[in-house]
Amino acid sequence: MSIVIVAAESGEVLDTYRAVLAEALPDLDVWTWPDVPDPAAVRYALVWQPEPGVLGRFPNLAGIFNLGAGVDAILRDTTLPAGVPLMRLADAGMGDQMVEYCLYGVLHFHRDMDLYRRDQSAGGWHPRPFVAPGQRRVGVLGLGALGAQVADACTAFGFDTAGWSRSPKVLRNVHAFAGAERFDAFLARTDILVNLLPLTDATRGILNADTLGKLPRGACLINAARGAHVVEADLLAALDDGHIRGCLLDAFDPEPLAADHPFRHHPGVLITPHIAAQTLPREACQQIVNNIKRLEDGRAPYNVVDRTSGY
Amino acid sequence: MSIVIVAAESGEVLDTYRAVLAEALPDLDVWTWPDVPDPAAVRYALVWQPEPGVLGRFPNLAGIFNLGAGVDAILRDTTLPAGVPLMRLADAGMGDQMVEYCLYGVLHFHRDMDLYRRDQSAGGWHPRPFVAPGQRRVGVLGLGALGAQVADACTAFGFDTAGWSRSPKVLRNVHAFAGAERFDAFLARTDILVNLLPLTDATRGILNADTLGKLPRGACLINAARGAHVVEADLLAALDDGHIRGCLLDAFDPEPLAADHPFRHHPGVLITPHIAAQTLPREACQQIVNNIKRLEDGRAPYNVVDRTSGY
Ligand SMILES: NC(=O)c1ccc[n+]([C@@H]2O[C@H](COP(=O)([O-])OP(=O)(O)OC[C@H]3O[C@@H](n4cnc5c(N)ncnc54)[C@H](OP(=O)(O)O)[C@@H]3O)[C@@H](O)[C@H]2O)c1
Ligand SMILES: NC(=O)c1ccc[n+]([C@@H]2O[C@H](COP(=O)([O-])OP(=O)(O)OC[C@H]3O[C@@H](n4cnc5c(N)ncnc54)[C@H](OP(=O)(O)O)[C@@H]3O)[C@@H](O)[C@H]2O)c1
Repeated sequence: MSIVIVAAESGEVLDTYRAVLAEALPDLDVWTWPDVPDPAAVRYALVWQPEPGVLGRFPNLAGIFNLGAGVDAILRDTTLPAGVPLMRLADAGMGDQMVEYCLYGVLHFHRDMDLYRRDQSAGGWHPRPFVAPGQRRVGVLGLGALGAQVADACTAFGFDTAGWSRSPKVLRNVHAFAGAERFDAFLARTDILVNLLPLTDATRGILNADTLGKLPRGACLINAARGAHVVEADLLAALDDGHIRGCLLDAFDPEPLAADHPFRHHPGVLITPHIAAQTLPREACQQIVNNIKRLEDGRAPYNVVDRTSGY
Repeated sequence: MSIVIVAAESGEVLDTYRAVLAEALPDLDVWTWPDVPDPAAVRYALVWQPEPGVLGRFPNLAGIFNLGAGVDAILRDTTLPAGVPLMRLADAGMGDQMVEYCLYGVLHFHRDMDLYRRDQSAGGWHPRPFVAPGQRRVGVLGLGALGAQVADACTAFGFDTAGWSRSPKVLRNVHAFAGAERFDAFLARTDILVNLLPLTDATRGILNADTLGKLPRGACLINAARGAHVVEADLLAALDDGHIRGCLLDAFDPEPLAADHPFRHHPGVLITPHIAAQTLPREACQQIVNNIKRLEDGRAPYNVVDRTSGY
């Protein structure tokens, strides 16, 4: 019996996966696609953006592990075996990184760093008045494994924090909005919007002219989720018009972002190359090993993706 | 008996001071320099960078309150009355702001935002490897009212944090270095240096070619204290040479920073116009009122400046 890793990762990362899995699960061989001596012996697959069709080659799969939090890419693979549980990573070392990234973005706009940057080169010296964090309304789209931690970190800094999710949530010091019917109210009270939604049919293009327009004038955006959440032309228009003051974007569609993309030279846009939260092999393996043990014992695994809702 | 405010502040801020003081100390008149009907009646002075000589006009001063944390400017006034206690603000709403500012700077360099900014306009897409905060050594110069809070916030984010002060300190999870003889060891273990020292004879020019050279190659600097702590030419040379990777500077000598200053166009320099932590009138008044009551009761006031050490 064996585990196969199907991922376009670098050698060092694969070595870590192999070493950690081999130590924790000595009864399983660990193979790396395409070096698979016996496809029928493959029981578990660890995958990150696999070539479509690869997973169909393993007839005895008992579990598929997505080596990231977002499963939008793998769910687009129409050859994905239907009856096999698909599991994703929840936090797995990404939570702390996401808190760092999003809090950086929130502080960037909260403390007017975008405006000071422009003054710096323009020769200006314009101290802006102090705004207490309690007067700054942060809104987090998605209150899952990552969004809930980001919202919590914002409350710790005293920001007036809200969040939006599909099902109702109770989070300490967070104004929790749930469901499509509360989306407008959530947007209307948000000065700094942080996107941590999964990419699904319901959320694709969710940041568009209509919804960005419902934010207060001068609002800022941090997109740490997926590029396809954003309608790029609408965001650029909102930036040009000043309705959106600035944004920090980590994800794009497609990636890498083109070398001549207008985001690169827009004064209101900061970009990073999808580094908000990287999958950490050790933390990822811990969750995977735990789930493999549960599956082998006939218990329900954690973090199973609901293929109907798409996350 | 009265209080006089001697400060180059805007009308709104003065109104707040007047209103809060009048409510808390109904027995004292509140005057604003130069509208002082009776100089001999002035018992307390609230000052921020007063014109030299002004304080000498009040013969019956019982206390002088500096409307900020740093007293370097007022101590340069050779006409400052000698026997009158000079008090400064300690935190007074500045701590939270300083934590925001310095943590922003630490995250900026920790998460390679300076490098991504350059890639953005150059057309690049180069995700850098993840560095755990425990592998990032932050060092805070000065562990006083502000530095101790900044160090504490860095430990909360998991950074490997050290601090340097004159007298030995015990702070949870902070490697505490004390005294001139431990300065080199502190510098040698610091990847991101945060300056929160007071400006005194002992600290003027403390960030120079020699000391910057003792930081590991590629170290970053956040100066949230005073411009005169830094020997500008030495910092620029260290940046050009790559020994210092980047810096975030809030304070300059003189201020405002000249419109054509080399800092403004250096790719390794971020500047802000002395906004790291602004004095908040309400919080400031609380400390001042408390100290006035203590003085009136014949008790020792808090936050008295030691004129020998200069802070
Ligand atoms: N840029 C990066 O480096 C990076 C790294 C990791 C992850 N990500 C992105 O971050 C996303 C979130 O990750 P996660 O682990 O926090 O996901 P998660 O645990 O699945 O949480 C998703 C959250 O979004 C909410 N949600 C989903 N669909 C919704 C809808 N239609 N309306 C309202 N709320 C909706 C969910 O509501 P319920 O709680 O009610 O289900 C949940 O709170 C990932 O999908 C991925 O795209 C990016
Ligand atoms: N940019 C801004 O917006 C802004 C705003 C507020 C304040 N500031 C600056 O921040 C500075 C610090 O404020 P604070 O309220 O934290 O001051 P503080 O409470 O007086 O603390 C000063 C710290 O520096 C240490 N120190 C002083 N001289 C030293 C020396 N020669 N060697 C080693 N350590 C030394 C002190 O050591 P001991 O503990 O042993 O005495 C103390 O830990 C202010 O002086 C001001 O310049 C800037």
